[in-house]
Amino acid sequence: MRIDLNSDLGEGYGAWSMGDDAAMLDIVSSANVACGFHAGDPLTMLATVREATARGVAIGAHVSYPDRVGFGRRPMDVTHAELVADVIYQIGALQGICAAAGTRVTYVKPHGALYNTIATDARQGAAVIEGIRVVDPALALMGLAGTPILAQAAEAGLPTIAEAFADRGYRPDGQLVSRRDPGAVLHDPEAVAARMLRLATEGAIEAADGSLLRLRADSICVHGDSPGAVAMAVRIRAVLVENGVTIAPFAPGAA
Amino acid sequence: MRIDLNSDLGEGYGAWSMGDDAAMLDIVSSANVACGFHAGDPLTMLATVREATARGVAIGAHVSYPDRVGFGRRPMDVTHAELVADVIYQIGALQGICAAAGTRVTYVKPHGALYNTIATDARQGAAVIEGIRVVDPALALMGLAGTPILAQAAEAGLPTIAEAFADRGYRPDGQLVSRRDPGAVLHDPEAVAARMLRLATEGAIEAADGSLLRLRADSICVHGDSPGAVAMAVRIRAVLVENGVTIAPFAPGAA
Amino acid sequence: MRIDLNSDLGEGYGAWSMGDDAAMLDIVSSANVACGFHAGDPLTMLATVREATARGVAIGAHVSYPDRVGFGRRPMDVTHAELVADVIYQIGALQGICAAAGTRVTYVKPHGALYNTIATDARQGAAVIEGIRVVDPALALMGLAGTPILAQAAEAGLPTIAEAFADRGYRPDGQLVSRRDPGAVLHDPEAVAARMLRLATEGAIEAADGSLLRLRADSICVHGDSPGAVAMAVRIRAVLVENGVTIAPFAPGAA
Amino acid sequence: MRIDLNSDLGEGYGAWSMGDDAAMLDIVSSANVACGFHAGDPLTMLATVREATARGVAIGAHVSYPDRVGFGRRPMDVTHAELVADVIYQIGALQGICAAAGTRVTYVKPHGALYNTIATDARQGAAVIEGIRVVDPALALMGLAGTPILAQAAEAGLPTIAEAFADRGYRPDGQLVSRRDPGAVLHDPEAVAARMLRLATEGAIEAADGSLLRLRADSICVHGDSPGAVAMAVRIRAVLVENGVTIAPFAPGAA
Repeated sequence: MRIDLNSDLGEGYGAWSMGDDAAMLDIVSSANVACGFHAGDPLTMLATVREATARGVAIGAHVSYPDRVGFGRRPMDVTHAELVADVIYQIGALQGICAAAGTRVTYVKPHGALYNTIATDARQGAAVIEGIRVVDPALALMGLAGTPILAQAAEAGLPTIAEAFADRGYRPDGQLVSRRDPGAVLHDPEAVAARMLRLATEGAIEAADGSLLRLRADSICVHGDSPGAVAMAVRIRAVLVENGVTIAPFAPGAA
Repeated sequence: MRIDLNSDLGEGYGAWSMGDDAAMLDIVSSANVACGFHAGDPLTMLATVREATARGVAIGAHVSYPDRVGFGRRPMDVTHAELVADVIYQIGALQGICAAAGTRVTYVKPHGALYNTIATDARQGAAVIEGIRVVDPALALMGLAGTPILAQAAEAGLPTIAEAFADRGYRPDGQLVSRRDPGAVLHDPEAVAARMLRLATEGAIEAADGSLLRLRADSICVHGDSPGAVAMAVRIRAVLVENGVTIAPFAPGAA
Repeated sequence: MRIDLNSDLGEGYGAWSMGDDAAMLDIVSSANVACGFHAGDPLTMLATVREATARGVAIGAHVSYPDRVGFGRRPMDVTHAELVADVIYQIGALQGICAAAGTRVTYVKPHGALYNTIATDARQGAAVIEGIRVVDPALALMGLAGTPILAQAAEAGLPTIAEAFADRGYRPDGQLVSRRDPGAVLHDPEAVAARMLRLATEGAIEAADGSLLRLRADSICVHGDSPGAVAMAVRIRAVLVENGVTIAPFAPGAA
Repeated sequence: MRIDLNSDLGEGYGAWSMGDDAAMLDIVSSANVACGFHAGDPLTMLATVREATARGVAIGAHVSYPDRVGFGRRPMDVTHAELVADVIYQIGALQGICAAAGTRVTYVKPHGALYNTIATDARQGAAVIEGIRVVDPALALMGLAGTPILAQAAEAGLPTIAEAFADRGYRPDGQLVSRRDPGAVLHDPEAVAARMLRLATEGAIEAADGSLLRLRADSICVHGDSPGAVAMAVRIRAVLVENGVTIAPFAPGAA
């Protein structure tokens, strides 16, 4: 039994910081590193990659729309060619940073609005996939478990990483409960840790209506942007480890 | 007899263009490609690299201070760590673009104010050198012939490319005539072409006082930002070729 | 008989230029001046406003989404509060520039994707209207003749300026012919000038199917981004003036 | 007896925050509000100005070099014309925000590297002064007590505000102790508060060598970027008030 824990890291910018990266690097096995388009200046990227590498944490390119003031959270109707080139540029920049730190990028996780859009928008999804493939087709694409982008990427020959969100409620059909509905975000660390243990060991998670949902996830996304979030992530890791689940980066190529 | 011709290319940004890249790509053997900090969005970079590669033109990273509104022309007092990381990031981004275009970066030419600063400022020079080395020590640094940065880079183990400026006057001591003094910029295409032929074949150039200056240059910088500049570059190439000089990219590692 | 001619001006950025502003300032009566979000650095804005003011051309704030690399042409799903503040900021910045140049902003014309979006999207339209009103409710909003945003702005108490596009075909229902359909863009300067004369004098324009469309327009938008566009704008102005139509800025408050 | 307390506020950017603005707004009488060039997106600016105005805190434009990733802390060799326009633009943008919030800008305080540079660099100082004057010559310039910029501004007809730094040591000649030397930054809230009381009531401050320095200051700069800094600011205000010093904004025009 083995699963990956991932978190968004290196999301500061210049003098600004975001989240408790030091704490999270002791918890996760994969770091989604911001590449400059929504967050992450070169110096922050380099420091983040060095610290992650020192702890054996795998590095993913957290690519975004070019929208720093909106933190990449706002849907943008970019063209195919723009998005392909934006993805290439960001992966390359992080690869340069990784080369300098003696490591390499192993996967790509789109950020924020881009992540949500490509989960179901095959046009923008195709651009992200193409951007990854032309740089390095061995890079895996991390996407939301149960959404079409994963099959689209697999058909295009990319390794894929299906991820679940630790603190989100799921509908019986495998979709996330909308943030506008009750039960969208879960706050009890013990309950969340128990859910993630069941997900990792049984491939199942309790949906919002109490039914049992089959869900295959290669990675669990945890957050470090508040003390409560860090505490929850600590608890998830502890419960997984105590129950014999190995926390390790997804192995690219094994998909 | 062989020399490199280089030019700054891909200096548009989004909807804005700069210079006649199509014309220059038929003239030069090396393209200094803007990496996003003073110019060059990802889509422009990708198109530029593809067109350069289709013509057998070598690709250099035209790295800059982060100053798009000032086109990288304004000296900035950045820290060592910031400059190292900025150089790494820009090289990496262009390497990603090159991977997507089936080619690779072979050299680095700092742009504008950064170029001028490191010619003589060993502190910022050391940061640029470190940034290059940690990404790939096989990358050559292109710098102004006769300035200390070239020896500094060579001592650090980097291949170097000494460049001369086709349209600039030289002082007897090998320095460029200041833009504030008469004779700083030359305008006669025939005279300039004859000067560059002599430089390429004899390693000599006539200084502003009429004396003969020994100058070793691996590459000649030509411009494409005005019709007159393009015409001068055309003439330089023609005169060199007619006289048996091979125009070819500098071979990294041969320094 | 009187009409306004407007054009997008000051759309350079730093070292980059866009269009032939000098030519257009001799043609138009109103200048839509970029405010920094899609184009227009402070120095370009100041030069543009000074030159416009010297020719008696009115100044409008050409506000945009914050998307310089995309030139404001990409739809963005911004929040109400973000858009309100972005509009305020841009108007204020241009007001500062105008104060320095001894003039003032008299109207606001959203740019690119924002212009198209608010033509029919009442939610973003409300944000633009609120942004204008809280800075100065005497500022007019320029929008596409025949679209709901004009009534929405008028209901909110703003003066409005209905504009027609000189080089665009119209459908019988008053909407523009889509750029994906034939007849979207007109290229014959004489035909276009004749259409604009009829529009200015009769309030009518021939639709794509040959029928006559009633269209009230306070202003005609002309372009300066190519030599052909400038020539068309010259011809439009000449035909209007020769036929006794006064070219003058829309008078705010008269709506 | 009366003095102003000022602090840098609104220095977040989009999703990033900086310092404890809420706490500082209960302490200071003047808020130096970031205008977008080193920090401060439009929405943050609007919220900051509204909160400051609700507490009767005066608004100053905290203008900067255009260097967001460097937080405006890096000296830049900008041209006179660029700096004039940059200052105009930033003041105008904040004036727009203030108009929307029902208040107005009353002074300008350059930020970071620009602040330090103009203290003694008359060329850049002249650009800042010109930028302020052409927007509104009634705006006061806040500068470091004892530096030439204040006289330069006064000669140009601007009201001036001389400020002292609460937590900095002073040399006997009235200059700040360099950050490279011991005694540059003071950490004891009680000692600092006592120094500021003496400064406000006697116009004197103890220099690093124990001698008494005459120093006229209209305003005291306090910080809110750490819990310790906020605690120090709280103590300064309390000691001043307990001893009968009125905390109030500098009155522009009274200089």
